Amino acid sequence: MNGETDSRSASTLTECRIEEIDRVFQGAPFIRQLGPRLVRVSAGECESLLDLERSHLQQDGYVHAGVQATLADHTAGAAGATLIRSGQIVLTAEFKISLLRAARGERLCCQARVLKPGSRLIFAESEIYCDTSAGAVLVAKASVTLAVLPRPKPD
Amino acid sequence: MNGETDSRSASTLTECRIEEIDRVFQGAPFIRQLGPRLVRVSAGECESLLDLERSHLQQDGYVHAGVQATLADHTAGAAGATLIRSGQIVLTAEFKISLLRAARGERLCCQARVLKPGSRLIFAESEIYCDTSAGAVLVAKASVTLAVLPRPKPD
Amino acid sequence: MNGETDSRSASTLTECRIEEIDRVFQGAPFIRQLGPRLVRVSAGECESLLDLERSHLQQDGYVHAGVQATLADHTAGAAGATLIRSGQIVLTAEFKISLLRAARGERLCCQARVLKPGSRLIFAESEIYCDTSAGAVLVAKASVTLAVLPRPKPD
Amino acid sequence: MNGETDSRSASTLTECRIEEIDRVFQGAPFIRQLGPRLVRVSAGECESLLDLERSHLQQDGYVHAGVQATLADHTAGAAGATLIRSGQIVLTAEFKISLLRAARGERLCCQARVLKPGSRLIFAESEIYCDTSAGAVLVAKASVTLAVLPRPKPD
Repeated sequence: MNGETDSRSASTLTECRIEEIDRVFQGAPFIRQLGPRLVRVSAGECESLLDLERSHLQQDGYVHAGVQATLADHTAGAAGATLIRSGQIVLTAEFKISLLRAARGERLCCQARVLKPGSRLIFAESEIYCDTSAGAVLVAKASVTLAVLPRPKPD
Repeated sequence: MNGETDSRSASTLTECRIEEIDRVFQGAPFIRQLGPRLVRVSAGECESLLDLERSHLQQDGYVHAGVQATLADHTAGAAGATLIRSGQIVLTAEFKISLLRAARGERLCCQARVLKPGSRLIFAESEIYCDTSAGAVLVAKASVTLAVLPRPKPD
Repeated sequence: MNGETDSRSASTLTECRIEEIDRVFQGAPFIRQLGPRLVRVSAGECESLLDLERSHLQQDGYVHAGVQATLADHTAGAAGATLIRSGQIVLTAEFKISLLRAARGERLCCQARVLKPGSRLIFAESEIYCDTSAGAVLVAKASVTLAVLPRPKPD
Repeated sequence: MNGETDSRSASTLTECRIEEIDRVFQGAPFIRQLGPRLVRVSAGECESLLDLERSHLQQDGYVHAGVQATLADHTAGAAGATLIRSGQIVLTAEFKISLLRAARGERLCCQARVLKPGSRLIFAESEIYCDTSAGAVLVAKASVTLAVLPRPKPD
């Protein structure tokens, strides 16, 4: 992460933030079903991996755009969550994803980073690479706007 | 559908197109797992319904943005597929989705329509309504660019 | 405007709001140079017209995407400004514009409306029609996220 | 430019491509009025500079989002135009721009690069930096989809 985004470094990511990012990744039923795992976290950055299975495909055998969108949005949300305060959550306001190539391969790797943090809005982006027999290929890029909100009280 | 998009009406949707739209909806493993069903198809328009379950939620109990993105993209793709020729497919080039409200309720209804058909690009949009105890509420709107391509040959 | 967006009707648009919308349209030097005029305002909705001149074109004789983007963004901002409180301003957080057709004609008409108002974020969309000899044609559609902020103090 | 996008290097940009990029930048009346100049071109990449004047501002003294959108779109189009063949043009199909910070300063610098070239679609992105007394600050980022088309015949 460059100085642009935040002055905190990976080593100073507090327990509280680590906990929130785990909660975002482990606590979302839709994500648990999809199957990605978080493999790297630092202030303003996250990386996730998804082993591709038949259940991730669309009708022509490519990875469904919805799988890539979910991975891009969720990993960007986790990157944003590294920069908020205790008692806050991030919620996606909107995102755009460009599907650069039809994706087919063994695994997706999603790298998300915060472009601009903020107390109300956080701008982030995600790149998705697909591991193929010819190496890792950039298959999608997303641009995500996250709203920073107070954590809702449990019902 | 207005005259803007196409002059064909629902009643002239050929067998061939109906088949392609069924294939798009039934043939995609990721969509079969998610669970939406197509309830209305006409030239340039599609509507789908998704009964919400716990597996569709994110960590705070709202419908995951990825679920809404998948539904919006896939239903727009089906709307686009009503306007292509035999031997062609549509593939999403990019889409943007705005999450207008945190979605919580019993069912999502997605209405997609083609804004502008074309032989190379089709522009479509999707609106997602959430059935709540207070009635149907617009929770998301997406704008989708579809590329029209020759159908790939089976491996 | 439908009930979805706001309960205020056109007739109850206060003096204060009218003033703010005029300020947005007349007070922006870039807009004064471009030349659009506001022709209709109601709560959550605005319409603007731009008579096309050679200075609005790109290298192939079509209306420049930047002209359409500026018109779409600014008219959406004005629509959003009808729904804020005194002492607040709207600032565009992001927007997407789809250029549905190469635009060539005599005049652009931009119709913007708020999809979802809010105290922090306002979601709006704009449609641009081009007056041609064959009638008005939809040439672009934009989706705009506006941030609601306190008005900055003069320097 | 990385290997991802194209194997041609700056030194092999043909005369024909240089001419097309000049035409895109000099031949667009809207761009001539706005005032940016192209300062660097290589295969898949372009950089432009815009000296800020009062005519580029919105009602609160910031650079108008439409100025940034025009610069981001046009510079991305020029980057795309480095990778097409003689007799072809690029036309923007859609773009999204995130306005990361309210921009105020002396000059904008726009760096555009192609993420994925193609014979029908080119995906590009642009970053806009604003020169301020505190140095260059990233103020906007855009994601652009360009359609590659045969050059229209003169009227």
